[in-house]
Amino acid sequence: MKFYDCKTAPSPRRARIFIAEKNIAIEHIEVDLRNAEQMGDAFRQINAYCTVPVLELDNGTHLTTTAGIWQYLEAAYPEPALMGTTAEQKGIIADLQWRIETGGFMAMGEYLRNSAPAMKGRALTGTVNYEQIPELAVRGKDRLTHFFDDIDELIGTKPYVAGETFSVADIDLLVVIDFAKWKKITLPKTAVNAWRWYETVSARPSTQSVEPVSR
Amino acid sequence: MKFYDCKTAPSPRRARIFIAEKNIAIEHIEVDLRNAEQMGDAFRQINAYCTVPVLELDNGTHLTTTAGIWQYLEAAYPEPALMGTTAEQKGIIADLQWRIETGGFMAMGEYLRNSAPAMKGRALTGTVNYEQIPELAVRGKDRLTHFFDDIDELIGTKPYVAGETFSVADIDLLVVIDFAKWKKITLPKTAVNAWRWYETVSARPSTQSVEPVSR
Repeated sequence: MKFYDCKTAPSPRRARIFIAEKNIAIEHIEVDLRNAEQMGDAFRQINAYCTVPVLELDNGTHLTTTAGIWQYLEAAYPEPALMGTTAEQKGIIADLQWRIETGGFMAMGEYLRNSAPAMKGRALTGTVNYEQIPELAVRGKDRLTHFFDDIDELIGTKPYVAGETFSVADIDLLVVIDFAKWKKITLPKTAVNAWRWYETVSARPSTQSVEPVSR
Repeated sequence: MKFYDCKTAPSPRRARIFIAEKNIAIEHIEVDLRNAEQMGDAFRQINAYCTVPVLELDNGTHLTTTAGIWQYLEAAYPEPALMGTTAEQKGIIADLQWRIETGGFMAMGEYLRNSAPAMKGRALTGTVNYEQIPELAVRGKDRLTHFFDDIDELIGTKPYVAGETFSVADIDLLVVIDFAKWKKITLPKTAVNAWRWYETVSARPSTQSVEPVSR
Protein backbone atom coordinates (compact mmCIF):
# COMPACT_ATOMS: atom_id res chain seq x y z
CA MET A 1 0.00 0.00 0.00
CA LYS A 2 0.95 3.63 -0.51
CA PHE A 3 -0.42 6.58 1.42
CA TYR A 4 -0.48 9.96 -0.37
CA ASP A 5 -0.17 12.52 2.37
CA CYS A 6 0.57 16.18 2.98
CA LYS A 7 1.99 16.81 6.41
CA THR A 8 1.02 20.49 6.43
CA ALA A 9 -2.70 19.87 5.68
CA PRO A 10 -5.44 18.94 8.16
CA SER A 11 -7.44 16.52 5.97
CA PRO A 12 -4.80 13.83 5.53
CA ARG A 13 -3.93 14.09 9.22
CA ARG A 14 -7.29 12.39 9.94
CA ALA A 15 -6.10 9.32 8.05
CA ARG A 16 -2.50 9.59 9.28
CA ILE A 17 -3.50 9.40 12.95
CA PHE A 18 -5.79 6.44 12.16
CA ILE A 19 -2.91 4.57 10.47
CA ALA A 20 -0.59 5.32 13.40
CA GLU A 21 -3.19 4.08 15.94
CA LYS A 22 -3.43 0.80 14.00
CA ASN A 23 0.37 0.67 13.76
CA ILE A 24 0.24 -0.26 10.08
CA ALA A 25 3.43 0.14 8.04
CA ILE A 26 2.52 1.96 4.81
CA GLU A 27 4.79 3.77 2.38
CA HIS A 28 4.17 7.52 2.74
CA ILE A 29 4.34 9.77 -0.29
CA GLU A 30 4.29 13.51 0.35
CA VAL A 31 2.23 15.55 -2.12
CA ASP A 32 3.36 19.16 -2.46
CA LEU A 33 0.09 21.06 -2.09
CA ARG A 34 1.97 24.34 -1.74
CA ASN A 35 3.04 24.01 -5.37
CA ALA A 36 -0.32 22.52 -6.48
CA GLU A 37 1.14 19.10 -7.25
CA GLN A 38 -2.35 17.64 -6.67
CA MET A 39 -3.64 19.51 -9.75
CA GLY A 40 -0.97 18.08 -12.08
CA ASP A 41 -1.43 15.32 -14.65
CA ALA A 42 0.60 12.77 -12.68
CA PHE A 43 -1.53 13.08 -9.54
CA ARG A 44 -4.79 13.14 -11.52
CA GLN A 45 -3.98 9.59 -12.59
CA ILE A 46 -4.03 8.67 -8.90
CA ASN A 47 -7.03 10.78 -7.87
CA ALA A 48 -9.13 12.58 -10.46
CA TYR A 49 -10.65 14.66 -7.64
CA CYS A 50 -7.21 16.25 -6.98
CA THR A 51 -7.37 15.84 -3.18
CA VAL A 52 -5.36 14.16 -0.44
CA PRO A 53 -5.41 11.80 1.39
CA VAL A 54 -5.33 8.85 -1.01
CA LEU A 55 -4.66 5.22 -0.12
CA GLU A 56 -3.40 3.00 -2.94
CA LEU A 57 -4.09 -0.67 -2.30
CA ASP A 58 -1.71 -3.37 -3.49
CA ASN A 59 -4.06 -4.25 -6.38
CA GLY A 60 -3.96 -0.65 -7.61
CA THR A 61 -7.36 0.49 -6.23
CA HIS A 62 -7.30 4.08 -5.01
CA LEU A 63 -9.41 5.19 -2.06
CA THR A 64 -9.65 8.97 -2.22
CA THR A 65 -11.64 9.97 0.87
CA THR A 66 -10.96 9.72 4.58
CA ALA A 67 -14.28 7.87 4.92
CA GLY A 68 -13.19 5.21 2.41
CA ILE A 69 -9.68 4.88 3.84
CA TRP A 70 -11.02 4.46 7.38
CA GLN A 71 -13.62 1.85 6.42
CA TYR A 72 -11.07 -0.16 4.46
CA LEU A 73 -8.41 -0.14 7.16
CA GLU A 74 -10.90 -0.82 9.97
CA ALA A 75 -12.04 -3.98 8.17
CA ALA A 76 -8.58 -5.09 7.05
CA TYR A 77 -6.88 -4.32 10.41
CA PRO A 78 -9.61 -4.67 13.06
CA GLU A 79 -7.37 -4.14 16.10
CA PRO A 80 -7.55 -1.77 17.83
CA ALA A 81 -11.10 -0.93 16.75
CA LEU A 82 -11.47 2.79 16.07
CA MET A 83 -15.06 2.71 14.79
CA GLY A 84 -16.74 0.63 17.49
CA THR A 85 -17.19 -3.06 18.12
CA THR A 86 -20.86 -3.48 19.08
CA ALA A 87 -23.63 -2.28 16.76
CA GLU A 88 -24.59 0.45 19.20
CA GLN A 89 -21.01 1.73 19.53
CA LYS A 90 -20.63 1.75 15.76
CA GLY A 91 -23.80 3.84 15.47
CA ILE A 92 -22.84 6.27 18.22
CA ILE A 93 -19.31 6.77 16.88
CA ALA A 94 -20.53 7.33 13.30
CA ASP A 95 -23.13 9.79 14.62
CA LEU A 96 -20.53 11.81 16.54
CA GLN A 97 -17.96 11.67 13.78
CA TRP A 98 -20.47 12.99 11.22
CA ARG A 99 -21.49 15.85 13.53
CA ILE A 100 -17.84 16.80 14.12
CA GLU A 101 -16.94 16.57 10.44
CA THR A 102 -19.89 18.63 9.20
CA GLY A 103 -20.33 21.02 12.14
CA GLY A 104 -16.64 21.53 12.92
CA PHE A 105 -14.28 20.51 10.13
CA MET A 106 -16.45 21.72 7.23
CA ALA A 107 -17.34 24.96 9.06
CA MET A 108 -13.64 25.71 9.55
CA GLY A 109 -12.95 24.89 5.89
CA GLU A 110 -15.75 27.24 4.87
CA TYR A 111 -14.34 30.02 7.07
CA LEU A 112 -10.71 29.62 6.05
CA ARG A 113 -11.12 29.03 2.34
CA ASN A 114 -13.50 31.97 1.93
CA SER A 115 -11.25 34.43 3.75
CA ALA A 116 -7.56 33.48 3.37
CA PRO A 117 -5.77 35.63 0.77
CA ALA A 118 -3.78 32.57 -0.37
CA MET A 119 -7.05 30.79 -1.26
CA LYS A 120 -8.57 33.44 -3.52
CA GLY A 121 -10.20 31.63 -6.45
CA ARG A 122 -9.83 28.30 -4.61
CA ALA A 123 -12.73 28.42 -2.14
CA LEU A 124 -13.31 24.68 -2.53
CA THR A 125 -10.90 21.78 -2.93
CA GLY A 126 -11.21 19.78 -6.12
CA THR A 127 -11.00 20.33 -9.84
CA VAL A 128 -13.22 23.41 -10.21
CA ASN A 129 -12.04 26.88 -9.15
CA TYR A 130 -14.61 28.83 -7.12
CA GLU A 131 -14.31 32.43 -6.00
CA GLN A 132 -14.48 33.23 -2.30
CA ILE A 133 -17.85 34.27 -0.84
CA PRO A 134 -17.12 36.66 2.05
CA GLU A 135 -20.56 36.06 3.66
CA LEU A 136 -19.76 32.36 3.75
CA ALA A 137 -16.57 33.06 5.71
CA VAL A 138 -18.68 34.95 8.25
CA ARG A 139 -21.19 32.10 8.45
CA GLY A 140 -18.42 29.51 8.76
CA LYS A 141 -16.85 31.44 11.63
CA ASP A 142 -20.20 31.71 13.37
CA ARG A 143 -20.91 27.98 12.96
CA LEU A 144 -17.45 27.14 14.26
CA THR A 145 -17.95 29.38 17.28
CA HIS A 146 -21.17 27.53 18.16
CA PHE A 147 -19.36 24.24 17.66
CA PHE A 148 -16.55 25.28 20.02
CA ASP A 149 -19.08 26.45 22.61
CA ASP A 150 -20.51 22.92 22.74
CA ILE A 151 -17.28 20.87 22.97
CA ASP A 152 -17.05 20.92 26.76
CA GLU A 153 -20.53 19.44 27.10
CA LEU A 154 -19.84 16.97 24.27
CA ILE A 155 -16.88 15.55 26.24
CA GLY A 156 -18.40 15.82 29.69
CA THR A 157 -16.69 13.53 32.18
CA LYS A 158 -16.08 10.73 29.68
CA PRO A 159 -12.48 9.76 28.86
CA TYR A 160 -13.18 9.99 25.12
CA VAL A 161 -15.79 11.58 22.87
CA ALA A 162 -17.77 8.37 22.41
CA GLY A 163 -17.19 6.99 25.90
CA GLU A 164 -14.52 4.66 27.24
CA THR A 165 -12.59 4.05 24.04
CA PHE A 166 -10.57 6.24 21.67
CA SER A 167 -12.26 6.42 18.26
CA VAL A 168 -12.47 8.32 14.98
CA ALA A 169 -14.66 10.86 16.80
CA ASP A 170 -11.60 11.78 18.90
CA ILE A 171 -9.41 11.94 15.81
CA ASP A 172 -11.75 14.35 14.05
CA LEU A 173 -12.29 16.54 17.08
CA LEU A 174 -8.55 16.84 17.71
CA VAL A 175 -7.88 17.70 14.07
CA VAL A 176 -10.63 20.36 14.09
CA ILE A 177 -9.28 21.99 17.26
CA ASP A 178 -5.74 22.15 15.88
CA PHE A 179 -7.01 23.31 12.47
CA ALA A 180 -8.98 26.16 14.09
CA LYS A 181 -5.73 27.54 15.58
CA TRP A 182 -4.96 28.78 12.05
CA LYS A 183 -7.74 31.30 12.65
CA LYS A 184 -6.82 31.81 16.31
CA ILE A 185 -9.97 30.06 17.55
CA THR A 186 -9.29 28.07 20.70
CA LEU A 187 -11.17 26.23 23.44
CA PRO A 188 -12.44 28.58 26.14
CA LYS A 189 -10.32 28.48 29.33
CA THR A 190 -13.46 27.48 31.26
CA ALA A 191 -13.90 24.32 29.18
CA VAL A 192 -12.16 22.12 31.74
CA ASN A 193 -13.51 18.82 30.44
CA ALA A 194 -12.51 19.69 26.91
CA TRP A 195 -9.02 20.77 27.97
CA ARG A 196 -8.47 17.61 30.03
CA TRP A 197 -9.50 15.53 27.00
CA TYR A 198 -7.42 17.64 24.58
CA GLU A 199 -4.24 17.26 26.61
CA THR A 200 -4.68 13.49 26.94
CA VAL A 201 -5.39 12.96 23.26
CA SER A 202 -2.62 15.34 22.12
CA ALA A 203 -0.12 13.26 24.11
CA ARG A 204 -0.83 10.02 22.24
CA PRO A 205 2.09 8.93 20.04
CA SER A 206 -0.25 8.72 17.01
CA THR A 207 -1.05 12.43 17.15
CA GLN A 208 2.55 13.58 17.57
CA SER A 209 3.65 13.16 13.98
CA VAL A 210 3.98 16.64 12.48
CA GLU A 211 1.00 18.77 13.26
CA PRO A 212 -0.25 20.73 10.23
CA VAL A 213 0.71 24.36 10.10
CA SER A 214 -0.98 27.36 8.56
CA ARG A 215 0.66 28.61 5.41
CA MET B 1 -37.02 0.75 17.95
CA LYS B 2 -38.71 3.87 16.65
CA PHE B 3 -37.88 5.69 13.44
CA TYR B 4 -38.60 9.44 13.31
CA ASP B 5 -39.27 10.18 9.69
CA CYS B 6 -40.70 12.82 7.39
CA LYS B 7 -42.02 11.35 4.17
CA THR B 8 -41.82 14.65 2.28
CA ALA B 9 -38.11 15.27 3.02
CA PRO B 10 -35.11 13.80 1.20
CA SER B 11 -32.77 13.25 4.19
CA PRO B 12 -34.85 10.65 6.05
CA ARG B 13 -35.54 8.86 2.77
CA ARG B 14 -31.87 7.76 2.81
CA ALA B 15 -32.51 5.87 6.05
CA ARG B 16 -36.03 4.75 5.04
CA ILE B 17 -34.80 2.97 1.90
CA PHE B 18 -32.01 1.33 3.93
CA ILE B 19 -34.53 0.01 6.47
CA ALA B 20 -36.78 -1.29 3.68
CA GLU B 21 -33.86 -3.07 1.98
CA LYS B 22 -33.06 -4.83 5.26
CA ASN B 23 -36.76 -5.61 5.74
CA ILE B 24 -36.66 -4.51 9.38
CA ALA B 25 -39.97 -3.81 11.12
CA ILE B 26 -39.63 -0.49 12.97
CA GLU B 27 -42.35 1.78 14.29
CA HIS B 28 -42.47 4.89 12.08
CA ILE B 29 -43.26 8.27 13.59
CA GLU B 30 -43.95 11.11 11.18
CA VAL B 31 -42.47 14.49 12.19
CA ASP B 32 -44.32 17.47 10.74
CA LEU B 33 -41.46 19.55 9.30
CA ARG B 34 -43.96 21.77 7.48
CA ASN B 35 -45.15 23.07 10.84
CA ALA B 36 -41.63 23.05 12.36
CA GLU B 37 -42.41 20.24 14.81
CA GLN B 38 -38.66 19.43 14.84
CA MET B 39 -37.96 22.79 16.51
CA GLY B 40 -40.39 22.21 19.39
CA ASP B 41 -39.52 21.25 22.94
CA ALA B 42 -40.88 17.71 22.65
CA PHE B 43 -38.70 16.85 19.65
CA ARG B 44 -35.63 18.55 21.16
CA GLN B 45 -35.77 15.91 23.90
CA ILE B 46 -35.33 13.31 21.15
CA ASN B 47 -32.79 15.18 19.04
CA ALA B 48 -31.23 18.43 20.27
CA TYR B 49 -30.01 19.09 16.72
CA CYS B 50 -33.65 19.39 15.55
CA THR B 51 -33.20 17.20 12.47
CA VAL B 52 -34.67 14.01 11.03
CA PRO B 53 -34.05 11.12 10.60
CA VAL B 54 -33.67 9.80 14.16
CA LEU B 55 -33.54 6.16 15.23
CA GLU B 56 -34.47 5.44 18.82
CA LEU B 57 -33.02 2.16 20.07
CA ASP B 58 -34.86 -0.03 22.57
CA ASN B 59 -32.54 1.14 25.37
CA GLY B 60 -33.42 4.78 24.65
CA THR B 61 -30.27 5.76 22.73
CA HIS B 62 -30.99 8.17 19.88
CA LEU B 63 -29.00 8.07 16.67
CA THR B 64 -29.52 11.38 14.91
CA THR B 65 -27.63 11.10 11.63
CA THR B 66 -28.04 8.90 8.58
CA ALA B 67 -24.40 7.86 9.03
CA GLY B 68 -25.06 6.64 12.58
CA ILE B 69 -28.34 4.92 11.69
CA TRP B 70 -26.75 3.10 8.76
CA GLN B 71 -23.74 1.90 10.76
CA TYR B 72 -25.93 0.66 13.60
CA LEU B 73 -28.38 -1.21 11.39
CA GLU B 74 -25.66 -2.66 9.15
CA ALA B 75 -23.99 -4.20 12.22
CA ALA B 76 -27.23 -5.30 13.93
CA TYR B 77 -28.85 -6.66 10.73
CA PRO B 78 -25.97 -7.70 8.47
CA GLU B 79 -28.08 -9.23 5.69
CA PRO B 80 -28.30 -8.06 3.00
CA ALA B 81 -25.05 -6.09 3.32
CA LEU B 82 -25.49 -2.54 2.03
CA MET B 83 -22.03 -1.23 2.99
CA GLY B 84 -19.83 -4.00 1.58
CA THR B 85 -18.60 -7.33 2.85
CA THR B 86 -14.88 -7.40 2.02
CA ALA B 87 -12.54 -4.68 3.29
CA GLU B 88 -12.02 -3.39 -0.25
CA GLN B 89 -15.76 -3.21 -0.96
CA LYS B 90 -16.34 -1.40 2.32
CA GLY B 91 -13.70 1.16 1.36
CA ILE B 92 -14.97 1.65 -2.18
CA ILE B 93 -18.61 2.01 -1.07
CA ALA B 94 -17.71 4.50 1.68
CA ASP B 95 -15.60 6.46 -0.82
CA LEU B 96 -18.44 6.69 -3.35
CA GLN B 97 -21.09 7.42 -0.74
CA TRP B 98 -19.05 10.31 0.69
CA ARG B 99 -18.51 11.80 -2.79
CA ILE B 100 -22.23 11.56 -3.59
CA GLU B 101 -23.26 13.01 -0.22
CA THR B 102 -20.87 15.97 -0.34
CA GLY B 103 -20.77 16.61 -4.09
CA GLY B 104 -24.43 15.91 -4.82
CA PHE B 105 -26.66 15.94 -1.77
CA MET B 106 -24.96 18.84 0.03
CA ALA B 107 -24.65 20.85 -3.20
CA MET B 108 -28.40 20.49 -3.81
CA GLY B 109 -29.11 21.46 -0.20
CA GLU B 110 -26.91 24.53 -0.62
CA TYR B 111 -28.70 25.49 -3.85
CA LEU B 112 -32.24 24.93 -2.55
CA ARG B 113 -31.94 26.36 0.94
CA ASN B 114 -30.23 29.52 -0.30
CA SER B 115 -32.82 30.24 -2.98
CA ALA B 116 -36.27 28.88 -1.99
CA PRO B 117 -38.59 31.62 -0.69
CA ALA B 118 -39.97 29.20 1.92
CA MET B 119 -36.48 28.80 3.39
CA LYS B 120 -35.66 32.47 3.97
CA GLY B 121 -33.84 32.72 7.31
CA ARG B 122 -33.42 28.90 7.36
CA ALA B 123 -30.47 28.40 5.02
CA LEU B 124 -29.15 25.55 7.17
CA THR B 125 -30.94 22.81 9.08
CA GLY B 126 -30.42 22.75 12.84
CA THR B 127 -30.94 25.03 15.80
CA VAL B 128 -29.42 28.26 14.46
CA ASN B 129 -31.21 30.42 11.89
CA TYR B 130 -28.99 31.59 9.04
CA GLU B 131 -29.96 34.00 6.28
CA GLN B 132 -29.75 32.89 2.68
CA ILE B 133 -26.60 33.72 0.72
CA PRO B 134 -27.63 34.16 -2.93
CA GLU B 135 -24.06 33.56 -4.21
CA LEU B 136 -24.09 30.23 -2.41
CA ALA B 137 -27.25 29.19 -4.29
CA VAL B 138 -25.42 29.96 -7.54
CA ARG B 139 -22.38 27.97 -6.44
CA GLY B 140 -24.56 25.06 -5.27
CA LYS B 141 -26.31 24.94 -8.64
CA ASP B 142 -22.99 24.98 -10.46
CA ARG B 143 -21.57 22.20 -8.29
CA LEU B 144 -24.70 20.13 -8.80
CA THR B 145 -24.50 20.60 -12.57
CA HIS B 146 -20.93 19.28 -12.58
CA PHE B 147 -22.07 16.39 -10.40
CA PHE B 148 -24.89 15.50 -12.82
CA ASP B 149 -22.50 15.73 -15.79
CA ASP B 150 -20.39 12.99 -14.23
CA ILE B 151 -23.12 10.50 -13.22
CA ASP B 152 -23.13 8.60 -16.51
CA GLU B 153 -19.42 7.90 -16.27
CA LEU B 154 -19.75 7.07 -12.56
CA ILE B 155 -22.24 4.28 -13.39
CA GLY B 156 -20.62 3.11 -16.60
CA THR B 157 -21.68 -0.39 -17.54
CA LYS B 158 -21.86 -1.64 -13.95
CA PRO B 159 -25.22 -2.80 -12.55
CA TYR B 160 -24.80 -0.60 -9.47
CA VAL B 161 -22.69 2.39 -8.46
CA ALA B 162 -20.11 0.33 -6.56
CA GLY B 163 -20.21 -2.71 -8.86
CA GLU B 164 -22.26 -5.88 -8.74
CA THR B 165 -24.21 -5.20 -5.55
CA PHE B 166 -26.77 -2.60 -4.47
CA SER B 167 -25.34 -0.39 -1.70
CA VAL B 168 -25.69 2.88 0.18
CA ALA B 169 -23.97 4.56 -2.78
CA ASP B 170 -27.04 3.68 -4.88
CA ILE B 171 -29.39 4.90 -2.16
CA ASP B 172 -27.68 8.28 -1.96
CA LEU B 173 -27.43 8.74 -5.73
CA LEU B 174 -31.12 7.92 -6.20
CA VAL B 175 -32.14 10.31 -3.43
CA VAL B 176 -30.01 13.10 -4.92
CA ILE B 177 -31.47 12.63 -8.41
CA ASP B 178 -35.04 12.72 -7.10
CA PHE B 179 -34.22 15.66 -4.79
CA ALA B 180 -32.79 17.66 -7.73
CA LYS B 181 -36.15 17.43 -9.52
CA TRP B 182 -37.36 20.07 -7.04
CA LYS B 183 -35.13 22.46 -8.95
CA LYS B 184 -35.91 20.87 -12.33
CA ILE B 185 -32.43 19.44 -12.69
CA THR B 186 -32.52 16.05 -14.41
CA LEU B 187 -30.15 13.54 -15.96
CA PRO B 188 -29.22 14.44 -19.53
CA LYS B 189 -31.08 12.34 -22.15
CA THR B 190 -27.72 11.18 -23.48
CA ALA B 191 -26.78 9.62 -20.12
CA VAL B 192 -27.87 6.15 -21.18
CA ASN B 193 -25.97 4.29 -18.48
CA ALA B 194 -27.32 6.57 -15.78
CA TRP B 195 -30.90 6.24 -17.06
CA ARG B 196 -30.66 2.43 -17.26
CA TRP B 197 -29.41 2.38 -13.65
CA TYR B 198 -31.99 4.95 -12.48
CA GLU B 199 -34.93 2.96 -13.89
CA THR B 200 -33.70 -0.28 -12.32
CA VAL B 201 -33.11 1.24 -8.90
CA SER B 202 -36.35 3.24 -8.96
CA ALA B 203 -38.28 0.01 -9.53
CA ARG B 204 -37.03 -1.65 -6.32
CA PRO B 205 -39.77 -2.10 -3.71
CA SER B 206 -37.62 -0.28 -1.11
CA THR B 207 -37.59 2.94 -3.13
CA GLN B 208 -41.31 2.96 -3.89
CA SER B 209 -42.49 4.16 -0.50
CA VAL B 210 -43.59 7.78 -0.90
CA GLU B 211 -41.05 9.80 -2.80
CA PRO B 212 -40.41 13.21 -1.20
CA VAL B 213 -42.10 16.15 -2.87
CA SER B 214 -41.13 19.80 -3.12
CA ARG B 215 -43.15 22.09 -0.92
